[in-house]
Order: sequence, then C-alpha cells, then structure tokens
Amino acid sequence: MSAEREALVARYLSVRAATEALAEPLSPEDQQLQSMPDASPTKWHRAHTSWFFEEFLLTPSGREPVNPRYRYLFNSYYDAVGPRHARPRRGILSRPTCDEVTAYRRTVDGRMLELLGGADAPALEKLRPLVELGLAHEEQHQELILTDILHAFSESPLLPALRAPASRPRLEPKPAEPVAFVEHPGGLVTIGAADDSGFHFDNEGPRHRVFLEPFALASRPISVAEVRAFIEAGGYQTPGLWLAEGFEHARAQGREAPARFRLEGSRAVVFGVDGEREAQGDEPACHLTYYEADALARFLGGRLPTEFEWEHAAARSDPALGNFRESGALRPLPGGALFGDVWSWTSSAYAPHPGFRPAAGAVGEYNGKFMVSQLVLRGGSCFTPAGHVRASYRNFWPPGTSFQMSGARVARSLG
Amino acid sequence: MSAEREALVARYLSVRAATEALAEPLSPEDQQLQSMPDASPTKWHRAHTSWFFEEFLLTPSGREPVNPRYRYLFNSYYDAVGPRHARPRRGILSRPTCDEVTAYRRTVDGRMLELLGGADAPALEKLRPLVELGLAHEEQHQELILTDILHAFSESPLLPALRAPASRPRLEPKPAEPVAFVEHPGGLVTIGAADDSGFHFDNEGPRHRVFLEPFALASRPISVAEVRAFIEAGGYQTPGLWLAEGFEHARAQGREAPARFRLEGSRAVVFGVDGEREAQGDEPACHLTYYEADALARFLGGRLPTEFEWEHAAARSDPALGNFRESGALRPLPGGALFGDVWSWTSSAYAPHPGFRPAAGAVGEYNGKFMVSQLVLRGGSCFTPAGHVRASYRNFWPPGTSFQMSGARVARSLG
Amino acid sequence: MSAEREALVARYLSVRAATEALAEPLSPEDQQLQSMPDASPTKWHRAHTSWFFEEFLLTPSGREPVNPRYRYLFNSYYDAVGPRHARPRRGILSRPTCDEVTAYRRTVDGRMLELLGGADAPALEKLRPLVELGLAHEEQHQELILTDILHAFSESPLLPALRAPASRPRLEPKPAEPVAFVEHPGGLVTIGAADDSGFHFDNEGPRHRVFLEPFALASRPISVAEVRAFIEAGGYQTPGLWLAEGFEHARAQGREAPARFRLEGSRAVVFGVDGEREAQGDEPACHLTYYEADALARFLGGRLPTEFEWEHAAARSDPALGNFRESGALRPLPGGALFGDVWSWTSSAYAPHPGFRPAAGAVGEYNGKFMVSQLVLRGGSCFTPAGHVRASYRNFWPPGTSFQMSGARVARSLG
Amino acid sequence: MSAEREALVARYLSVRAATEALAEPLSPEDQQLQSMPDASPTKWHRAHTSWFFEEFLLTPSGREPVNPRYRYLFNSYYDAVGPRHARPRRGILSRPTCDEVTAYRRTVDGRMLELLGGADAPALEKLRPLVELGLAHEEQHQELILTDILHAFSESPLLPALRAPASRPRLEPKPAEPVAFVEHPGGLVTIGAADDSGFHFDNEGPRHRVFLEPFALASRPISVAEVRAFIEAGGYQTPGLWLAEGFEHARAQGREAPARFRLEGSRAVVFGVDGEREAQGDEPACHLTYYEADALARFLGGRLPTEFEWEHAAARSDPALGNFRESGALRPLPGGALFGDVWSWTSSAYAPHPGFRPAAGAVGEYNGKFMVSQLVLRGGSCFTPAGHVRASYRNFWPPGTSFQMSGARVARSLG
Repeated sequence: MSAEREALVARYLSVRAATEALAEPLSPEDQQLQSMPDASPTKWHRAHTSWFFEEFLLTPSGREPVNPRYRYLFNSYYDAVGPRHARPRRGILSRPTCDEVTAYRRTVDGRMLELLGGADAPALEKLRPLVELGLAHEEQHQELILTDILHAFSESPLLPALRAPASRPRLEPKPAEPVAFVEHPGGLVTIGAADDSGFHFDNEGPRHRVFLEPFALASRPISVAEVRAFIEAGGYQTPGLWLAEGFEHARAQGREAPARFRLEGSRAVVFGVDGEREAQGDEPACHLTYYEADALARFLGGRLPTEFEWEHAAARSDPALGNFRESGALRPLPGGALFGDVWSWTSSAYAPHPGFRPAAGAVGEYNGKFMVSQLVLRGGSCFTPAGHVRASYRNFWPPGTSFQMSGARVARSLG
Repeated sequence: MSAEREALVARYLSVRAATEALAEPLSPEDQQLQSMPDASPTKWHRAHTSWFFEEFLLTPSGREPVNPRYRYLFNSYYDAVGPRHARPRRGILSRPTCDEVTAYRRTVDGRMLELLGGADAPALEKLRPLVELGLAHEEQHQELILTDILHAFSESPLLPALRAPASRPRLEPKPAEPVAFVEHPGGLVTIGAADDSGFHFDNEGPRHRVFLEPFALASRPISVAEVRAFIEAGGYQTPGLWLAEGFEHARAQGREAPARFRLEGSRAVVFGVDGEREAQGDEPACHLTYYEADALARFLGGRLPTEFEWEHAAARSDPALGNFRESGALRPLPGGALFGDVWSWTSSAYAPHPGFRPAAGAVGEYNGKFMVSQLVLRGGSCFTPAGHVRASYRNFWPPGTSFQMSGARVARSLG
Repeated sequence: MSAEREALVARYLSVRAATEALAEPLSPEDQQLQSMPDASPTKWHRAHTSWFFEEFLLTPSGREPVNPRYRYLFNSYYDAVGPRHARPRRGILSRPTCDEVTAYRRTVDGRMLELLGGADAPALEKLRPLVELGLAHEEQHQELILTDILHAFSESPLLPALRAPASRPRLEPKPAEPVAFVEHPGGLVTIGAADDSGFHFDNEGPRHRVFLEPFALASRPISVAEVRAFIEAGGYQTPGLWLAEGFEHARAQGREAPARFRLEGSRAVVFGVDGEREAQGDEPACHLTYYEADALARFLGGRLPTEFEWEHAAARSDPALGNFRESGALRPLPGGALFGDVWSWTSSAYAPHPGFRPAAGAVGEYNGKFMVSQLVLRGGSCFTPAGHVRASYRNFWPPGTSFQMSGARVARSLG
Repeated sequence: MSAEREALVARYLSVRAATEALAEPLSPEDQQLQSMPDASPTKWHRAHTSWFFEEFLLTPSGREPVNPRYRYLFNSYYDAVGPRHARPRRGILSRPTCDEVTAYRRTVDGRMLELLGGADAPALEKLRPLVELGLAHEEQHQELILTDILHAFSESPLLPALRAPASRPRLEPKPAEPVAFVEHPGGLVTIGAADDSGFHFDNEGPRHRVFLEPFALASRPISVAEVRAFIEAGGYQTPGLWLAEGFEHARAQGREAPARFRLEGSRAVVFGVDGEREAQGDEPACHLTYYEADALARFLGGRLPTEFEWEHAAARSDPALGNFRESGALRPLPGGALFGDVWSWTSSAYAPHPGFRPAAGAVGEYNGKFMVSQLVLRGGSCFTPAGHVRASYRNFWPPGTSFQMSGARVARSLG
C-alpha cells in the first residue's frame, strides 16, 4: 500500500475510533437522549457520520445502501438527498438500537476500507477530498457528542458526570497572567484559507483582503472572576450593558448567570463532564451566549473582535499550543492561547467571504445555506479534536446558544 | 402463612411480574422513550409503581428509602409528598438505567414481602387497602406502558411492532352481528360502588341514585366501517356534525381520520402492537378523541351515552366476557361485549359523585383533584388487565386524547 | 296596531335603544378595542346584533342585505351561514366606522319595523319566536359590551372609568347578614323550562326530572372578606385547596388574587366601571375563575353546587329581587338574592338536558355546539338586563374565564 | 429672527405638519389600529414623536411634562428614561383619544417654538443637534405611519384604500430599460458619514476604509416580472434556492408569493395605498423579506450586495432623483434610480462601523443596541420623505420582515 493510501486509511480509522471511544462510557439509554431540538442523541451522531460516508462515497461508488431507511433517518439537512426525519424528533428513534448502530458503523468501515484499498492512485486522489470532508465532518460531530450529552446531563436532576473519577486526568494548570491588550496596527490584511493550503471547509475561502483599523486584543479570554464581577455589579439587571435583544433574551429565560454557572457565596460552581465543581477565578468563562459575551465585553470597557481581527491576530499563533480534547482536561484552563479552551464569539455575522461559491451537488449544502442569523466563533475549544481547527476556521451559532463551549475575548479600537 | 396473607402475597407477586413481562421485549432505548408530555417512558412507569409502594407502605413502616432521590424522580403528581421532576421531562432521565430500575423493583419487592410476611393479622388488615390500591394503581400503569410505547412507536418512521410475529396469537374473531339498540326504561337507578363491595377507587363512590329518562344503547361499539362511512361522507369537513371545539381541534391538527387510521383505497390501515395491518370493517374503531366519538354518534343518528346510562346498562353484564389483555389479542375484536375491546367515551364530565370525599393524606390526591375538563370513559379495553374494571369503574381523559384505546357506543333517547 | 304587535315593537325598540345607550359614552376609539381574543369591540357587538336580525328575519323575508360584506364581517360563529371573519381579529376592523355602524343599526331598525308592521297576525306569530330570540341575543351582547370594555379598560395603564363621576348612582347598600346555610331535602325534582313557559333558550329544555341528595346552599355569595382570608391563609400557594388544573392555571398566570382585585394593607381594591375603588368586605367577590370559585368553596368547608341544586333552590325565588343592570349600581352589592350581583359558578359541566335537540337551520347553532369544556353559571349579574334571566337560565364559560361578572355560592352535602 | 433660527423653526413646523397631513385622512378608529406587535397605531406614532421633543428638549429645559403619564405611554424603548407601556399592547390605548393627541401635539409645538424662539445663538446651536435628531426621528415615524396602516388595511377583509380615488396622482412612469450590470473595480474605498457632513445618525459613522473586491450591481431593482418567473419556476418549493432559515420561514408561513402579492392568471395583483391593483411587470417588487430577496438574487444568477458595495455604488448618485413620498406616487415605479422606490436589502448584518460609540445619555440608545440579528437596507423608498436619506444612511430590519417597502437589487462578484 502506498504511503499516501496508508496515511489516509490510518487517519480514517483513527477518527472513526475516536468517535466510538467517546460513546463508550455511555449507556444505551444515555445515547438515546435528546434534551432539546438543537441537540442530538449520541447514537444519532454515530449513525449520521456513517451515513455521510455512505451517501457521498459508497453510494456514488455503486454500493447498495446498508439499510435503505437509514437514508431517511440519518440525513441531517441535505435537501438534495431527499426527505428526512425531523431534527427535533431524533430522540424518538429507539430503533435502531445502540448495538445496531455499532454494527452499522462496522459495515460502513469495512466498505470504506474496501473502497480505499481498491482504488488506484488517480481514483484515490479523486476520493480524497470527500474522505477528508467526511472525517472533518465526523470531528465536528465528536465535539457535538460531548456538548449534547453534557446538555442532557445538565438537565437531569441527578447531574451525572460523564466519566468516572478514576478516569479523570490530574491537571496542573499554569497560573494565569494578568490580562494585557496586544496591539495590532491593522491595515490591509489577508483573510481566509488559500486554495492550496490543505484541507479546509468551503466557508473558509476564498482568500481575500480586508482593511482593519488599529485594534488590540486581550491576552486571554473573559474569566470566571470577570463574570462574577459582572453579576455582582448587577449586570443582568442593567439594560445599558446589553444589546436590546440580548437583555430581552436573558430576561425571558430568567437568566442571572451564564448557563451551568452559579455563585454560592464565595464559590463559583460550574457543571461539566465531571459533574459540578468549583471553578477557579482565572479560568475562561464558558457556555456564554453571544449576548452575554457582548455585554461582558462592554462591561469590561471593550467590545468583541470581528472575525477578521481575530483571524489576523491568530495568523502567527500555533494551534498546537491550545488546550484541545486530547489534553484530557475537557474543560477550559487558565492560560492565554488563542486556540482551544473556549470558542471565541466574534461580532461578525456569519456571511460568505467575497467570491464564495458552494460546491456542486448535495455536499454544497454543507455551509452556505446557514449564512444568516448566526455569529462566527473562532479558535476551537477543549472539546475540539486537536488538529481540527485553523486560523481560518469558522464555527457559527445563533446568538442565544449556550450549550457549546463558547467564551469570548475582549477587543478594543485604537486611535 | 394464613390463606389471606398468601392470597395477598400471590396477587402482589403476580401483578408485579406482569409489569415486568410487559417491559421484557423492550430494549433499554425503547424503555427510555417519551414521545409527548402526556406519555411516560416504560422505565419510569416501572420505577414509579415501585415508588408508590415505598411512599405509602414502606416509608410509613419505618424503612429507609432505597434511594432518597427517587422520591423526587418518581413521584407523579402528589403535592403533599413534595417537589417532583416535571412530567414532560421524564424522557431526560437516562439514569437510573433499566438495569438499575430492575434492581430497584427487586429491592422494593423484597421489602414488601418482608412487610407483608411480618405483619400480624390486624396489621395486615390495615395494610391491605393500600396494597390493593398500589396493585390497582400498578395495573393502571400496565395499560399506560402499552399505550405510551404504542404512541412512541407510532411516531417512529420505522413503525416498529411491539412483539415478534412468532409471539402473536392466532385470532379467530367471532363475526359481528348487525348493530341493534337495546332499550332501557330508565327511572330511578342506583349508581356507584357500595362501600362493602370489595376494592374500588374512591371516585366510584358513594353509591347513590340517579334518575334516567328512557334510552337505548347500541349492541356494539362504533366500527371501522362506520368511521370509513363518516370520512367518505366528508365528516371531517362538515362542521354541523361536530362540537365547535371538536371541529376546531380536528382542523388545527389537520385530522382527516382518527389517529393511526388511514384509508388506502378499499383498505383501512391501522397501527397497533403488531405494526400496521388492515382492519376489518366490523371491528371496533379505536384511538377516537371525544370529539370524534361525539361527531360519529351524531352522524349515526344518535349521541354518546351518559356514564350513568352506561353503568346502568352494564350492571347486569359480566366483565369476564370482555376482550382484555389476557386474551393476547391486544387489539379490539368484532363482537359486542360491554366490557373490554375499547374504552367507551361517555358524554359525562368527570365530576364527584354526590357526597364524594377524597381520602386523608397524600393518597387522597389520587382522583379528586382531576375532576374538571375531562370526560368519563367506561368498560376497559384490550390493553386493560382482566379483573381490573367493574361496572362502576371510571376512567377519564381530556376530550382531545387519542393515544388511549378509546372508542364509543351510540345511545339514543327514547320517548 | 294590535296590542300584541305594539308590545313586540315596543320591546324591540327598547332593547335596541338600550344597546345604543351603553355605547353612548364610548369614543370611536373605545368602541374599536379588542383586548383579547375572547372579547369583542363594542362596535362589533352593535353590528353583530343587527346582523342577527338581518340574517334570520330580514333576509328570509326577501330583503336585500344592507351591505353584502357585513355577512362575512359580523357573523359570529354560524357555520351554516358561511365563512366569517376570525374572532381574534375583530379589533382590526376600523372600517366600518362607528358612524357607519350607527347608520347600519338604523337601517336594520327601519326594515324591522316595516316587517313587523306589515305582517298579518299569523305571520307575526311566526316571526315572534325569532324576534324574541334576536332580542334575548342582543341582551346577552349588552352584557358582553360591558364585560368586554371593562376588560379593555383594565388593561390600559390609565385604568379609565366607564362613566363620569356625575353619572354614578348614590348607593345605599343594605348591610349583609351573616351567612347561613339553607337546607334542601332533595329527592326527585323537576329541572328545565317547560315548552309553554314563555321565551327561553333551547338549552333550558326539555323539562325533566333529576334526583338530588339532601344539600344546603349558602344564603349569600362568597364575599370579598372571604377572598381576603383565602389569600392571607396562603390559599394561592396551597395545592391541596385546588383542582390540579386550577392550581396550574393560577401558577401559570402568576395569580395571587382574583382578576382586578388586590390587597393594599387593610384595603381590598377592585377595578370596575367607575375605575378603581375600595371594596367592602361583605360585597360579593367578582371576576372569579371556576378554579378560584372551586378552591374558595373548599377553603370555606363546602363545595360548589350543581346547576340542578341551584335551579331547584332558585325555583321559588323571584328574579325581580336581584341587583341587575337597571339598578344602576353596575357592581355587586352586599345582600343575598339568588339572582343578580354575580353569576354563580356551578360544578356542572355544560351538557344537554336529556332529550335536547337543537333547532333546525343555522339558528340551531346557538347553543348545542358549545356543550363541552365549559361550566354552567346561573342567576345573572349586575351587568345583566333585568328580566333577562330565569331559574332555568344557563350561562356557560370555560373554567379559566375571569372577565365575566362571575362569583360563586357555597353548597354542602347533607346526611 | 436670525435666518438660521428661522430655517430651523420652518423645518420644525414643516416636518410636524407633514405628520399631521399623513394622519388626516384616517378616522379615529383607523388611528387606533395595531395589527401586529411590530406595528404601532398612527395615534401612537403622533404622540411618541411629540414625547421625543418633550423628553430630550423640553424637560431638560425645565418644562413640566404636559401629562406625566405620557412618559410611560409614549416612550418607545429608552431604558434610561424608565419603565414603559409594552409595545405589543399599544393598540389597547383608546385613551388618550385622537383629539387629545392632537391637542398634545399642539402644546408641544407651542413649547418648542417658545424654546427655539427664546434661545440665544449659542443656546440654539446647542439645541440644534437634538432638534435635528427629533425631526429625523419624526420622519422615520412618518414612514412607519404609512407602513403600519398599510399593514393594518391589508389585514382587513375590506382591503380599504388609504386615499380616495380623487386624491391619487396621475402617474406617467418612464418605461423601464432592460437590466444591465454596472461594474465597479472595488479596491480600498471610504464608507460612512464624515463628522462634519451635516446631520446624520450616529450609526452612519465613523467614516472609515473598506476593501472591496470587484463587483457589479444591477441597474434596477428586482422586478415584479422576475418575481413571477421565480414563482412559476417553483421557487417557493425549491430549497436549493434559499437559505435554510428562509425556506423554513416561507414554509412555516405558507408563503407562495411575497406579501400582498398574488398571481391571478396573467395578472400580478398587489395591495398598496390605493387598495388592490394590477402591477406592471417592470415595476420594482416590494414587501420582500430578506429571505425572499436572497433567494430571488440567487435565482437570477447573482447575490445581494453588501452594504459597502451599495454605498460605494451610490456615492456619486443624487438622492434627489429618487421616487420619494413627495412624488405622490406612494408606490414603486419602473426606473432605475438607486434611491427611492424600495429599500434595498443588503447581505450585511447590522453592526457598528469600526470605532462606533453611541452618544451619552438616553439618546445613545437610538441605534447601537439593535446591532444584532438584523440586516441593513439602503436607499429609502416611495414612503420615505425626500431629503431624509443619504448614501451613508442605514436602515435595518430582521430578515423575516415584509411590511416595509423592501425590495432588492442583484449584485455579482467579478474576476
């Protein structure tokens, strides 16, 4: 087997195995949970990511579907593929069972290995972009498996932990340094992924120029201590600190703190993969809505950065320095890396880069059709697989979202 | 062991085992399903019925709770017991798992046997009414286990069957006779269960007199063929056949047939425990809302009976003749017994019999507090355990309910 | 003109004029208000009551419609008449204007006088039942004009009064006597209006027998002082005093007192036609929902009466003794008459009397199609025109209704 | 009086009179209408614009409020001013009446003239920005008076016209030329209003640089004929033409054409200030949601422009050439001016220009707090007063908005 083929197969197997490792500690009942319309059951994520390989690689290569009804059950949002099971009703699918989904994954894996093994070099090069897309897609769902089960557990009166005490890493977080504002002169900068820069999603391109005014960016994300100060200063009762829609959103939800965050005297208690725990003051605040991130930035005398400011600032930063899933922490840690820990809300609405064109066919529905009413987040989180994000990587969620590992970093205009 | 004690223990074990037998073919994922706020997961029913014995028998006898949090998780609606997990969120409880619930049931059973075995005769007589209530309560939940999982399966695109083809009974239904109207002269009749008539729910008493005008009652329930005639005559588009609220309800839900019923050319296809199947014209129509039952009765030239008319008509009928769960059919069959097959909607709002007083303590919340905005149904269904219902037995549901095994029988006023 | 014709014409003119007198103090803007889906603008009531005469008397007599579009705009709920403007959107009808509605009323009146004047005696006898129905119908809407504008004003931050101080009567209410319970032996009693007993609505018949157990009925309605006691005893926080649905209703609405009622230290402040005022402790409580009435009765050691108990108790009572609209008070007064002041919620669901049959044609939609999910109220209120109600008169509203002049009287079971 | 003072007073009087002229043909009932939460009654607009002068000019100058409760009733959204009447409930305010609002406006005008007349030159210069803001604010509400009453009339089954046939202008629209795409080389361009460029809203600044890729902009807005082609090509049933959220929005609303637009054989019928009329194929399409505008642009082989592309293209265009309110047409006309006719949806989310800072005090709530979940529209419409808009002017609405005079112009990326 050629080294390239070997590398692709190895990466395929490694990504697929990582998904199963995430599901492994979860009971069949856990994997069945859908705690809100925006979240999906673990089992569904496991099946959907397999369907993706079937739909875009195996079926076009002439394989019969493993189960013709799975096309209906496990299509997420691809209109061109046909009708599909309604997203808010995914929790109703007790069948196929966990075990049947495991079998489905194995069958798909077998067929994929066959396909990759049997393709000659030119055919392999033709398959490669879709395999890479499928693997990047599966990595996105790995993060969602964690965020969605965490949401479900946060709704249970038992507040269960995702992993047993024995399997938790011993963390020795670096003490945080005081926040500083790193200045950037701005000017005409280059944004987006170049066509020949390796795998990236379509929404990261085309590469293009943007003019930036001078700005500064905080050396670390908004912290738990800053959230505490905001709450104690009456921030949740002060409309002047908020976007009007944000204040209304917090009021309608009865919010007096970020999701999964509460003050208990001098302690800030947060809920995460290890259940409830006391948070350190200098660790990054998490589960912020865009509205909260915006209000906190205003409270702290700044604003949120645009996605262009963030990307420009991150251009010379090494993603490998971030606290990603592989660290085992599975929670934000004090420190200041631009990558990892928490996704950074930016003030940029999710929109196409100039000249953006979605790919032809159903796979072109991947990103473009969501470009309204969402905000861009950057940098990845402690739930993101290492190697998944880049400086040009664009995540996006509606402004009221709080179940993601979302935080923020304060920016300031200069001059 | 005295014969009475033995009989009580035997009944306890038999009812408890029947619950487990119902759950047995269901996977942990199936048992986790909550397909709408009004339905509960199988697992929850299994735990809640056990909690009932803990709360009203074991705890008052001085036993420590098996798990203190279960009191919160598995209380259904008893305000006097304390706060409880919200009903529409029962599907979020992946923990405790199925296996943990099984263990919980076993522990409760062990303690109950201890309690019943260790009580002297007077103590046993004191425990008996609550044991009997707990068992009747568990029988009600047995019916709900079936109706709730049937609803969940009806929502799945896979339309799964509840039992394997091999485990389905071979049915030889009696051919239905033509409908006849049995006349009753009315007059001053006696209604309700007498205090000394064996176990009955508090809402069945006190026994009292009601004056009935002369009436006639159909010799069999409204049939599938009659529903077909209603649909084909444009019944769902004819407001004059409906209560105003009923027409609006059907319109708002886009209803053009009863739930789980559709016409496919000359076939009437229904969904039940064995998946989809063709219904015979002369079998009782099922899953009717009160609104549909009322409109169908009007279409057929009659009206629904009052609960008093029904009870009076049923007073000399033997419940043992009905098609109950033990027949194994698990679906309504042609025939004409007043008991079994489908619950009969009556035109009577659920209200206290004159002189009704709920029991003291939390157990008094069993029935009385639901006496508004619901209609009474009578007679039991093919999902009801044999021996559970009586002529005086009162079931009740809001008028828009369609997930129960609910049908109707036409009445007419005479003279 | 014959005396009978003269009397009919005089009654026609008097009822029609009374409607206009109610609207007279209201500005065109006031008459435009629809403050919730269940209430209608004054202007709409004025037009709809005129449409009733057109639809059921003038059109069948061969008159062209005054305006063909009014049939669509001012039909309330008669399906047999054709499609109609949606009830919750009545407030959108700025056209026709108030002045145009006044002109419409005058035209209808002219044509009605022509019709009544030109009919020979047999024709007149044929018209009479529908004229009487139209006038009784208009009297019902007179009460609704008051309840609906009162609701609208209660929603305005200005809390305007319906009439100027100068036009308010000087009231010298009789001091209330202590409550007593009047005992009734029950037995087989006669209920409903006899066919030959003068005008009554179809839902008041047929006359029939009902068996009553012995009961007692309070000598006066639940009072403001009793509501205060309920509130101060934590009644709104005590689920055991409520129907489950009622407690949930109060909780969902954030209710801590009846509508338009608040405690201000030692004062009970209520809102009525004269704006806000302090209520006397012994005046009847008003704007109670069925749920509140039921909970208050339970709190006071009794229950609500059935409609049959109420009617039987009222059978020998003279409606003329009640505090009706003509007293000018337009609010409940201390005293004990069974008629007037506040409508009495009964525990009876609104259902057909045995043998009830709606009239043929569209007019048959008047009552029967509403016989579900509502409770019967009896006796009339201080907003009801004198002469409008009888012992057999049945009003009906859903249990959560609070914008009507609804109160309650406590009953007790004896023996 | 100095010429400057005279000019300011003249402009004040002229703007205030224009508001009253718009309200003049509307009855008190019309002025009372609130047909949806996002629209306000005419009467409320008339009062609110007067309150603005009271709050920001008269009260700070020491005048007592005309009516202290008006501060509560007629504050729109200024949190710093205090609590306010809920927006969706403005239609409940029958009091103050139209006449009382007219009197209120006169009193405010008298006091404003006093204030402006009595101020010495430096004081006048200090007042001027707030007077100009108040007048620009009132002009915005003039457009809303038209859009809101048009919405209300479109909901009435009578579909009334806003003006009598006699008062309609005789229009001789120029025939439209075929659409062309005007190319722009892009590069580093200047955006936003300069500080010293005369009155503009805070959200139009600061002036700053933006880099644009080469693009082309259509020479006229999307036309009625293009909407017809979209509908006839099944556009409303083709998800691939839409943003996912847009397709869902149209589906949820049952949309098969833009608001107030329907095909009737070969005719396109639209509803406007003169009631229903047949639209010409070459007139601009109106009442488009952002979703529709986006889908139409995609259908036509292009995309929506960014607000920066639009502003750059409009920089050398003369607003005076546009079809604004003063033309009397009050509907979009064939032609191609960048200003007037219909507001142009852009693909730019409403966000602060770099360096944006809201003004201090309550007046700073004017724009900034709405900068999320809205899209920018540019250019003004046939309902906008002439002179009100500029190239830098930014209007903004949520993407589902259809009651505004909103259309779109297609853009294309070049190179």
